[in-house]
Amino acid sequence: MRIIIVGASGTMGTYLTNAFEKVHEVVKVSAKSGDIPTDITSPQSIEQMYEQAGPFDALICTAGPTYVGPWAKMSHREFQKGLEGKLMGQVNLVLIGQHFINTGGSFTLITGGLTYQPQRNFANASAANGAVEAFVRAAAIELENRVRINAVSPTVIENSPHYFPYFPGEIPTTMKALEFGFRKSLFGAGTGQVIVP
Amino acid sequence: MRIIIVGASGTMGTYLTNAFEKVHEVVKVSAKSGDIPTDITSPQSIEQMYEQAGPFDALICTAGPTYVGPWAKMSHREFQKGLEGKLMGQVNLVLIGQHFINTGGSFTLITGGLTYQPQRNFANASAANGAVEAFVRAAAIELENRVRINAVSPTVIENSPHYFPYFPGEIPTTMKALEFGFRKSLFGAGTGQVIVP
Repeated sequence: MRIIIVGASGTMGTYLTNAFEKVHEVVKVSAKSGDIPTDITSPQSIEQMYEQAGPFDALICTAGPTYVGPWAKMSHREFQKGLEGKLMGQVNLVLIGQHFINTGGSFTLITGGLTYQPQRNFANASAANGAVEAFVRAAAIELENRVRINAVSPTVIENSPHYFPYFPGEIPTTMKALEFGFRKSLFGAGTGQVIVP
Repeated sequence: MRIIIVGASGTMGTYLTNAFEKVHEVVKVSAKSGDIPTDITSPQSIEQMYEQAGPFDALICTAGPTYVGPWAKMSHREFQKGLEGKLMGQVNLVLIGQHFINTGGSFTLITGGLTYQPQRNFANASAANGAVEAFVRAAAIELENRVRINAVSPTVIENSPHYFPYFPGEIPTTMKALEFGFRKSLFGAGTGQVIVP
């Protein structure tokens, strides 16, 4: 299987790349490194990435920048800007990518526990997650050529301990569980699902 | 109680205005009519509306334009544009309105069944709904001065029969149930809730 991993140089992307490239061909996409440097907040950059990547069977996105900060300082500007990555970036990977993906392929996007378990400073990420999860359910009934779409929704992840203080009481998602969440999406038959690893 | 109803000239807004103005003072806000014409896609227009409206105890929003159309024709432009109303418009009503609302006041936003029950052509509305519902949960732990926030999530509504064909098998939400959903948010004590009327 030929798999594009967006956010391949991040904590999740590095782990998933190592896990999948033992058996599959992985195309690594990151903001500033990887096989194809790509800015997911730019539709033009996404389109160029797909043209360069060529045919593929699965796209995994682990990249989702959002605005993190105190509510009192957050104006419409920060909120809007914060939706360009995790929300619009991921939506555009699908809207554009549907014209490039192989028949029977799959998109797997990243959301997170903040959809239902908010934490202070992360309202923007909650909104982006909620949008992406509802988008995934809607896209599943629109995509053609047997293309599937799911989201994986971890909580704070094991390999990002610097985030633990912001998620009091959350039992971190192990990297192995995260990998298996993505495995379920890529190699299972489900579509329109939000997979909680 | 002094209640601002945004979308007051729409199907839901007209019904709610009639229901609430028997006992309460209602400030009617609409795109092109009402006491204060307001464009909710413009933060400046929202700010002017609050300045003109003066102190208030509750804000109800029933306005939420989104992009409706076939998936194949939907590019990032239509999708992004479609998020300006129901998503960013409602978020901005809260981000800006938190500085104007009375202590102990409430915001009640509108989402809809499409969050979990997608229909063809409505992927943009699904995403907007999902974002607003997650935002409501997150805002509830950020708002100060005992200000509450909830969403009301009807399915296709009884008084909009022209939408019925787009929602096969959905039992329409009655106007009375819709009103009671808003009553629960305004006069109850709950916050961070998505109320399904």
